[in-house]
Amino acid sequence: MSLSLTPFFDPKGVVVIGASTSPEKLGYGVARNLIASGYRGAIHFVSQKSGELFERPLYTTLSDVPDPVDLALLIVPTQSTPQTIEECAKRGIKAAIIMSSGFREVGAEGAALEQQCVDVARKHGVRLLGPNCIGTLDTHLPLDTTFLQPPMPMQGGIGFISHSGAFCAAVIDWARGQGFGFSQIVSLGNQADVNETDVLPEVANNAHTRVIVMYMESISNGKKFVRAANEVTKQKPIIALKVGRFEAGQKAAASHTGALAGSESAFDAAFHKAGVLRADTAEQMFDWAEALEDCSLPGGKRMAILTNAGGPGVIAADSLETNGLLLSQLTESTLKELSSYLPPSASVHNPVDMLASASPEAYAACLKILLQDENVDGVLVILPPPPMFKTEDVAEKIVETLSNSGSRIKPVVIALMGSTLVEEANKVFQRAHVPTYPFPERAASALGALVRRAEYLEGLDDGQLTIDNTVDHPSPIVDSADELVASYGIPTAPIKLARNVNEAVAIASELGFPVVMKIASIDISHKSDVGGVLLNITDTASLLSGYTTMIERVSKAMPQAKIEGVHLQRQIANGQEVIIGMVRDAQFGALMMFGSGGVEVEGLKDVAFALAPLNQAQAREMMRKTWAGRKLKGFRNIPPVDEESVIDVLVKLSQLAVEHEEIEEMEINPLRVLGKGAVAVDVRMKFQAAWHEKSAKS
Amino acid sequence: MSLSLTPFFDPKGVVVIGASTSPEKLGYGVARNLIASGYRGAIHFVSQKSGELFERPLYTTLSDVPDPVDLALLIVPTQSTPQTIEECAKRGIKAAIIMSSGFREVGAEGAALEQQCVDVARKHGVRLLGPNCIGTLDTHLPLDTTFLQPPMPMQGGIGFISHSGAFCAAVIDWARGQGFGFSQIVSLGNQADVNETDVLPEVANNAHTRVIVMYMESISNGKKFVRAANEVTKQKPIIALKVGRFEAGQKAAASHTGALAGSESAFDAAFHKAGVLRADTAEQMFDWAEALEDCSLPGGKRMAILTNAGGPGVIAADSLETNGLLLSQLTESTLKELSSYLPPSASVHNPVDMLASASPEAYAACLKILLQDENVDGVLVILPPPPMFKTEDVAEKIVETLSNSGSRIKPVVIALMGSTLVEEANKVFQRAHVPTYPFPERAASALGALVRRAEYLEGLDDGQLTIDNTVDHPSPIVDSADELVASYGIPTAPIKLARNVNEAVAIASELGFPVVMKIASIDISHKSDVGGVLLNITDTASLLSGYTTMIERVSKAMPQAKIEGVHLQRQIANGQEVIIGMVRDAQFGALMMFGSGGVEVEGLKDVAFALAPLNQAQAREMMRKTWAGRKLKGFRNIPPVDEESVIDVLVKLSQLAVEHEEIEEMEINPLRVLGKGAVAVDVRMKFQAAWHEKSAKS
Repeated sequence: MSLSLTPFFDPKGVVVIGASTSPEKLGYGVARNLIASGYRGAIHFVSQKSGELFERPLYTTLSDVPDPVDLALLIVPTQSTPQTIEECAKRGIKAAIIMSSGFREVGAEGAALEQQCVDVARKHGVRLLGPNCIGTLDTHLPLDTTFLQPPMPMQGGIGFISHSGAFCAAVIDWARGQGFGFSQIVSLGNQADVNETDVLPEVANNAHTRVIVMYMESISNGKKFVRAANEVTKQKPIIALKVGRFEAGQKAAASHTGALAGSESAFDAAFHKAGVLRADTAEQMFDWAEALEDCSLPGGKRMAILTNAGGPGVIAADSLETNGLLLSQLTESTLKELSSYLPPSASVHNPVDMLASASPEAYAACLKILLQDENVDGVLVILPPPPMFKTEDVAEKIVETLSNSGSRIKPVVIALMGSTLVEEANKVFQRAHVPTYPFPERAASALGALVRRAEYLEGLDDGQLTIDNTVDHPSPIVDSADELVASYGIPTAPIKLARNVNEAVAIASELGFPVVMKIASIDISHKSDVGGVLLNITDTASLLSGYTTMIERVSKAMPQAKIEGVHLQRQIANGQEVIIGMVRDAQFGALMMFGSGGVEVEGLKDVAFALAPLNQAQAREMMRKTWAGRKLKGFRNIPPVDEESVIDVLVKLSQLAVEHEEIEEMEINPLRVLGKGAVAVDVRMKFQAAWHEKSAKS
Repeated sequence: MSLSLTPFFDPKGVVVIGASTSPEKLGYGVARNLIASGYRGAIHFVSQKSGELFERPLYTTLSDVPDPVDLALLIVPTQSTPQTIEECAKRGIKAAIIMSSGFREVGAEGAALEQQCVDVARKHGVRLLGPNCIGTLDTHLPLDTTFLQPPMPMQGGIGFISHSGAFCAAVIDWARGQGFGFSQIVSLGNQADVNETDVLPEVANNAHTRVIVMYMESISNGKKFVRAANEVTKQKPIIALKVGRFEAGQKAAASHTGALAGSESAFDAAFHKAGVLRADTAEQMFDWAEALEDCSLPGGKRMAILTNAGGPGVIAADSLETNGLLLSQLTESTLKELSSYLPPSASVHNPVDMLASASPEAYAACLKILLQDENVDGVLVILPPPPMFKTEDVAEKIVETLSNSGSRIKPVVIALMGSTLVEEANKVFQRAHVPTYPFPERAASALGALVRRAEYLEGLDDGQLTIDNTVDHPSPIVDSADELVASYGIPTAPIKLARNVNEAVAIASELGFPVVMKIASIDISHKSDVGGVLLNITDTASLLSGYTTMIERVSKAMPQAKIEGVHLQRQIANGQEVIIGMVRDAQFGALMMFGSGGVEVEGLKDVAFALAPLNQAQAREMMRKTWAGRKLKGFRNIPPVDEESVIDVLVKLSQLAVEHEEIEEMEINPLRVLGKGAVAVDVRMKFQAAWHEKSAKS
């Protein structure tokens, strides 16, 4: 179904099917809101009984409804919904919002009925929103298709897409108290047809939408979402609250990567790749949205704090640090200007503490000075009720300063601390679209979101790769995991299978001592756990005794395992060890992992994730998140190794992952990184069903 | 000064010195509040001009003020404060609150004046609160010595101690909007005399105080605070917001422990030891305080969620997990009861989703059922405005349920989502002392605080050691760091100094191969960084060549270092390596560290901190916070080692640290943990000035 979604968001005429004259019915609420919203298109009502509602006729059949009409709001019994969709199609209505519940969310019977709706809709080319949703809201058009209690939310620039209708309802009421508004709200319900990825570009295209917030409980198609979100975030910021962590149970995984990569890692990586800011809490999501709606983006992360009280200034400074921001080093000329303005006992150094006596004029003057400082990228103003002045007078002066041309080039957020004493001031700031927060911590968090948004846009300018940039190259036919890896230009260590002790001696002398010996069995994933690994074999004698011991130990530990012999490999000494892995996420595809290798991977948890494909910059960013990555440059007596060779392997392996969808998990552990180059010492892959050890077929 | 603080908190008579008839003056505000507060003791005013204020005489000299009077509020010019304190003493007033600013906070001159105040006060036995503070508030006594704008905060059970007066003022106004009250508020100002530790027991002893919140920018005496707080937290919870992280610059440290232990680690460890809950933000501190004030403590961490909407239920479930809590597994009988009550499409499994149609009666009935479930330790009720009912009607029913005898044995918190539509409901809950939060995340965080408080009290019952439990034992005279360590029963590896290559050969044959060789120089802290460590020397030939190479390498790397020779030690193979360290925090004394050892300590940051002395339970808890500690039980092919021996070393080293205050830093790195026992392979200590390497004097 790729038919237009326009009728949902800009209909020419709307019909309420199931309109009711009883105020306690949803069919009344929807009719009431539609009219109260001030919607300028045609409004029609269809009901079982004829009559009148809000001075409009109640039609008893849909076919009687006159033009124009291109959107239907269905508040009809669950059972008759498919039939009603068909009637819509016959009347030429190609978009329907199904408010009713009782579908998939109540079990198998409901699910079957929901499928029936989809089938009918597909057949006739009708798009569906819902079922089990509360509809849509557009404060600017205006249009309100919900049955929520009036009044409508305030007008604003926040577009809100939600999987939960109840969350919408609660947030709308809460936002009213906070004094911020919305451009558009879409409640998605069961998403029988239209889903979050479908509506995202529509909401983003709304000229009044300056920032999009998404409440997500799931994702319909991960890859499509990342692509769509990536397009949107180039223009407008998206903030997502993804919930449902507790539902993600632990799955059995065959690799370290699989064990560590929960679905949350994949969501984190996907949001990161798409440029979506992920919020931890609902409150944080809207705190960030307010700042992104109202503030210009900072040129850097050096922030100034302006306060009339020391304590909250200290809290703010701590919070800037917590959010990865810096306290500006004010220029000499700023310090001088501030000194000339403020009393001698004030602190002109950042945080600038004007003292409790600070007047509205002092706030204005100091804010202006700070905004002109080239070392200041933004200002956090702290405003508890001043003992000697009205808070609203300070607010007026601050707003005046910001309104002067040029002063809103840098972001300014206000920690407006208090309640009754700051009520009027809050209104002043709201009218002027200056975001306020009850505590400095939340103001600092909002500044942090602005900085991350700015950094993301800068990254785009620096030529970050777009999604899906890889070119298919014909895969060579390879015999083993390490050959496949090698075919992408990733160096591997030559490895040979010895089926008996004589072959082992011959191979070792060919490879040259020292060698490493590993048990060869496709039944054994973690070889070192069962005594199936021997390092540093320096001569034939140790090889002979080692071979016998290993076969004995492994046979005892895993009597059911089929042992083919042992793998021999020239031992690569020195260097640093890292792990590079991949798991194929059901939603987002290849999820790459990098970190500290060895056997303690799950314990140390020094790993980072990112979605494939990776370019060099993305690989580097991922590596720097881990100690293993930072250590490559050397630390204390650990010599530096070839960092670029690791980036190269990461990029190449991510390309392999994208091009070989048959691989479910793969892991190089360790990748040994040398002074020059890196060698994949142990490569393992899991295909659909079974693990194929490196050289399993060689 | 150990004179009573009683006059500050329960004065018989109060005199305002510097009372003013001009409403814009602080001296007017203080007089106004004192009277408006309803304080039942005597109230007197002293002013420069005689006259009348609030129908009371203005005395021009303090000596004229009649009895009773035992507390003075000073709003006098900075310069005349010492003189006024002296006059107070003469009049028999032994407690003074200095509101005025212009003291230490403005520089050297002010600091001198402040010292003068303290000197005068000491001489005459007067206690001082402030200067530069806003005074005290007691809503129950009642008493208001501040100049804050009316009205007084609401009555409540939260005692609030603050280093910042402005933060007090802002929070009082904010709390008014949130609908919660205080028992007592103390603004400490510059703490010339009375500090946070002094007032803590006073506030805790207030019968109306159920929970204490502290806003702290510093600490006056860390050890005293831990002792005092520990006494209080046995009875009443303390929540602290400690700010000023950004001021703690990086200090040069000679050990890994010193490099990793910022002052924040010491504060964390101190709060942990004292049973103080540390909040991350101001909002969180009060969110927790409300729950601790109003709820009973849970018997465990299994929480039920009751909601009328799926989305917020999912948010709540996530947040429980984030806060370390569990979703209760409801019993079969609970599921059955819920099923019989709720419609079939509702979810009776936790989170219990009653659907949007849930009536006030449904909320009440289901809440009652959940509270009776033995698997439920507490309930998080989610209440967005119900589409078909008034939110306040639901609130009334919930409160009714909780009021029935026995129902408040388990904690219940409400996520009351919305604003105008939930306003009345909010009042209902406030009156009934049921804590509400605007979002499920904050409600879950509050439940988390309740659980941690309950666990702390259980830990006390389990016989956790009290502070300062160690017994002095006479220290033997020892020659070296490792002898000192050994004298506490910590096994060390024999180590010998070879001043030349011949001595090295003799010592090695005495110790037996393999040996380890380390450069001996008090000038070199990180020996491996300069090639000063050689492991696994298996024979005399390697020893000879190694000796020469090492001396050459180190001399080249650090030509200024004085080299005494090399230390030889029998190499202890196998086992696991951990680090145990100590730094002496200026405030809290010996801060112990445990974690992953080796050279990568600072990179891996797999370390935990706790204040000495440690008992076995505390040592174990500390170890379990790190991967190094968890790994001791074995992991994959890493065999288990003797965990108890590490606990033993930690406990003993913490005792050594407490008894040897001359040691500034010490570190065992590595402590090699074997199948049985553990050996301190490398012990280093820093005394006042220089590092003494192990065996430096041997």
